[in-house]
Amino acid sequence: MKNAVGRDIPEFVAGCKVSPYQGPWTCIPSRQSSGGKGVDVSASEKLLKSIDEAIDAVGLRDGMTISFHHHLRNGDYVMKLVIDAIARKGIRGLKLSASSLSAVQDAIMPHIESGVIVAIDTSGIRGEIGKFVSAGKLPQPVMIRTHGGRARAIESGELPIDVAFIGAPTCDTYGNINGVDGPAACGSLGYAIVDAACADKVVAITDNLVPHPLQRISIPQTQVDFIVKLDSIGDPKGISTGSLRISTDPKELLISEYAATVIEYSGYFRNNFSLQLGSGGASLSAAKFIQEKMRAKGITAAFGVGGITGVFVEMMEQGLVNLLFDAQSFDSASIQSLRKNARHLEMSASYYASPGTGSPIVNNVDAVILSATEVDINFNVNVLTGSNGKLMGAPGGHPDTAAGSNLCIVALPLLRKNFPVIRESVHTIVTPGDTVDVVVTDRGVAINPLRKDLIRNLKDSGLPLMLIEDLQRLAYELTGTPDPAPAGGDVVGLVEYRDGTIIDVIRKIS
Amino acid sequence: MKNAVGRDIPEFVAGCKVSPYQGPWTCIPSRQSSGGKGVDVSASEKLLKSIDEAIDAVGLRDGMTISFHHHLRNGDYVMKLVIDAIARKGIRGLKLSASSLSAVQDAIMPHIESGVIVAIDTSGIRGEIGKFVSAGKLPQPVMIRTHGGRARAIESGELPIDVAFIGAPTCDTYGNINGVDGPAACGSLGYAIVDAACADKVVAITDNLVPHPLQRISIPQTQVDFIVKLDSIGDPKGISTGSLRISTDPKELLISEYAATVIEYSGYFRNNFSLQLGSGGASLSAAKFIQEKMRAKGITAAFGVGGITGVFVEMMEQGLVNLLFDAQSFDSASIQSLRKNARHLEMSASYYASPGTGSPIVNNVDAVILSATEVDINFNVNVLTGSNGKLMGAPGGHPDTAAGSNLCIVALPLLRKNFPVIRESVHTIVTPGDTVDVVVTDRGVAINPLRKDLIRNLKDSGLPLMLIEDLQRLAYELTGTPDPAPAGGDVVGLVEYRDGTIIDVIRKIS
Repeated sequence: MKNAVGRDIPEFVAGCKVSPYQGPWTCIPSRQSSGGKGVDVSASEKLLKSIDEAIDAVGLRDGMTISFHHHLRNGDYVMKLVIDAIARKGIRGLKLSASSLSAVQDAIMPHIESGVIVAIDTSGIRGEIGKFVSAGKLPQPVMIRTHGGRARAIESGELPIDVAFIGAPTCDTYGNINGVDGPAACGSLGYAIVDAACADKVVAITDNLVPHPLQRISIPQTQVDFIVKLDSIGDPKGISTGSLRISTDPKELLISEYAATVIEYSGYFRNNFSLQLGSGGASLSAAKFIQEKMRAKGITAAFGVGGITGVFVEMMEQGLVNLLFDAQSFDSASIQSLRKNARHLEMSASYYASPGTGSPIVNNVDAVILSATEVDINFNVNVLTGSNGKLMGAPGGHPDTAAGSNLCIVALPLLRKNFPVIRESVHTIVTPGDTVDVVVTDRGVAINPLRKDLIRNLKDSGLPLMLIEDLQRLAYELTGTPDPAPAGGDVVGLVEYRDGTIIDVIRKIS
Repeated sequence: MKNAVGRDIPEFVAGCKVSPYQGPWTCIPSRQSSGGKGVDVSASEKLLKSIDEAIDAVGLRDGMTISFHHHLRNGDYVMKLVIDAIARKGIRGLKLSASSLSAVQDAIMPHIESGVIVAIDTSGIRGEIGKFVSAGKLPQPVMIRTHGGRARAIESGELPIDVAFIGAPTCDTYGNINGVDGPAACGSLGYAIVDAACADKVVAITDNLVPHPLQRISIPQTQVDFIVKLDSIGDPKGISTGSLRISTDPKELLISEYAATVIEYSGYFRNNFSLQLGSGGASLSAAKFIQEKMRAKGITAAFGVGGITGVFVEMMEQGLVNLLFDAQSFDSASIQSLRKNARHLEMSASYYASPGTGSPIVNNVDAVILSATEVDINFNVNVLTGSNGKLMGAPGGHPDTAAGSNLCIVALPLLRKNFPVIRESVHTIVTPGDTVDVVVTDRGVAINPLRKDLIRNLKDSGLPLMLIEDLQRLAYELTGTPDPAPAGGDVVGLVEYRDGTIIDVIRKIS
């Protein structure tokens, strides 16, 4: 048979069927823009006039899965605008996959109530959406994932995404994206990087469309099918806080100092150690004590990991930390730093924490300080629900970094509002106790008995070491034994451990 | 059923079977290092003592596909060392997928002759391996792909790679890799980036093992399963030339000047245009003329693409080109520049040229100057075989950028060694004529009749415009009509167009 340039092509070669050439722009592989000589693919094909046009262009249909990132946090306009447009078109029965749901997303409640969204796959869930799920009103159980677990699920094909709608603080006319420039700059696009790489179709939604090509590229044009320009994708005030608060509360400062001392004596506090700090108050305050100890001992850290805040940036700028790996930039200082400092590296959620990869960087973290809603006598941690079962939080990277790190410290007060949070059993297990090494409270520090090395190393630290059971008894003595939470009804949600197994369930509460 | 933290987990939820949690390090997703508290995954698992250990660790078996990149070019030691080790283990029947095969790879001939390698998938093929294939001795037909077509085939799953062996000029102890540091620095790792992302197993082979974490990361630790440290992965003299030659041959200079004039008058020579220059002599010399014209007209280019050479680097440093996108660094100047200049960007083969993506950057190239072995009166180009059918070249990115660019100029002399290279029909069609816009020779310039716009624009350029048929007739008049190439025997190779169809075949020659 002769092909389009007149060559004789055998129908079979070595037993394999051969496709003869049909012309340079005839066989368009999936995602290929047709192009052709002198055709500006972007102007003619990628750049659309509205979200409505993009929904049509990607062929969104009932029952598909749409995804969003939460880097714009409580300033995000994108999710509401997109789902409003989807609802107007009468499309229904979608699964919403979000890297997390902030309080601002309560704005999509009408579309959950009306059945435009019938399934939710997320790390965080709270507010009105949380109440709706807890009341058993969502047709399908909500799936709660860790940041690393979500990356694993997406990259493995377990969570296929039909269309990723990506809020893009800066996007060029062919779809190269970054998060560090533009009026809605949010810093790292770590969660979105995974969605863009794996989704069947990708729509970039930007308020800062710039000429091609962008110099700094976090998501490449090769992964972006369509671009929509809006007046604004987010409210900068809701995207980043000016700077995160370092506590002046004496109880929180005490917890922070204890946590820093645990690190100092743990055996991991040596030159080129690595550190992860969350955005919680205790974590931020602890940074101050850790800095002092690093200076006193004359050591520096090889790298820091996180959720990055200005505190970490300051440590890098002062030479105490060599590199920062940033999956999410929490404040304006970290966004600025990511933009300008070559030692501040953006990383994807997969690089950060996916257990489906060769080795996410959480596996290299020496010490991490994490917060908790409640902890139990088996060191299990809940960061998702209240003790009453109410959805109000997010696993985020908590289970990932607890499993990966050499030293996982969970810091929390013994009581919150006169309510014990070291308990016999937590309401929802998010992070299993065998990955939690030390629990630090204002009244005492408990070391996981699995960690005989830490028990030995911390012996002479001067810390008020106690058994976790004694901490729990002390809490109950101070407040009285708490009432057991109501048993709860049908399963309305699954709490996935990072490896894809189910570690707990969420039950209906009335 | 109760899971490992004692929670009741239903067996089915919403009709889906649920996997109960079994412990934090029990269910190991594919590629996960088992880790666990206080275990140094790298030292204990990733870092191996020899290539032999790595072959065992990845479970290499008869019939698998192994891949290599050619960024170390004629200085590469990696391919020979790996295949020697495989042969010693008695493993046979492998497919070799290489981004290209340089002359140095003749060193693996014994393993092709003995059946360790029975199939080859590559862009370039030459030397003894080319002769072996042409003689019909390889059990399976060789598959010749473009750089973009190879990326497409790998990313789509059409070309599954079992094990990628990646020569890593610098690698940290967890597998983060770059190509710009170390004694065997080769610059961009553009081809290897695709292999690392998609191969089932990835082995990094390095002679510059550095502490974790690397600041500059081209291939992330999450994609690397094992690391082997050798004394040397390559000979710097064979990796980069000191600086590529700019011609002093008057005929070549004339061709270059014509090519630059074609660009000047084409309609694409305006501020923020984009340019690709190959590493051929005409392309490099043309850069000099293009620079002069840019200065005269006061315009700058938005970006350059390629295979990058020192000539392009110089243009960037002088402010004539704003950004460089580099899939392969050809000389020491480009390697240095990629290391130090933030406006010199590394790109993957997929970003460069894959027709399976949203839009590879070849689609954004205004003008490209390419070389050719021979061109025919239908503007078809051969860069793979001689006119006699002998394998001696590589499609590389030729068909990709010809299809993507707005203006594809093919520059070659009318005669080579008194042998006509503008012919009635080329021996092997690699780049189809409808993607080639202008053929420039020392004796005249032919515009593809499909491009009426160019015919109009170049009317007053002062160039010696001719029909391609007249160029061919002139060549034949000067040398006599060439003897037809022997018909050739059985099919011994397939020439794949970038979209996956077959544009031509390679036949046995005796």
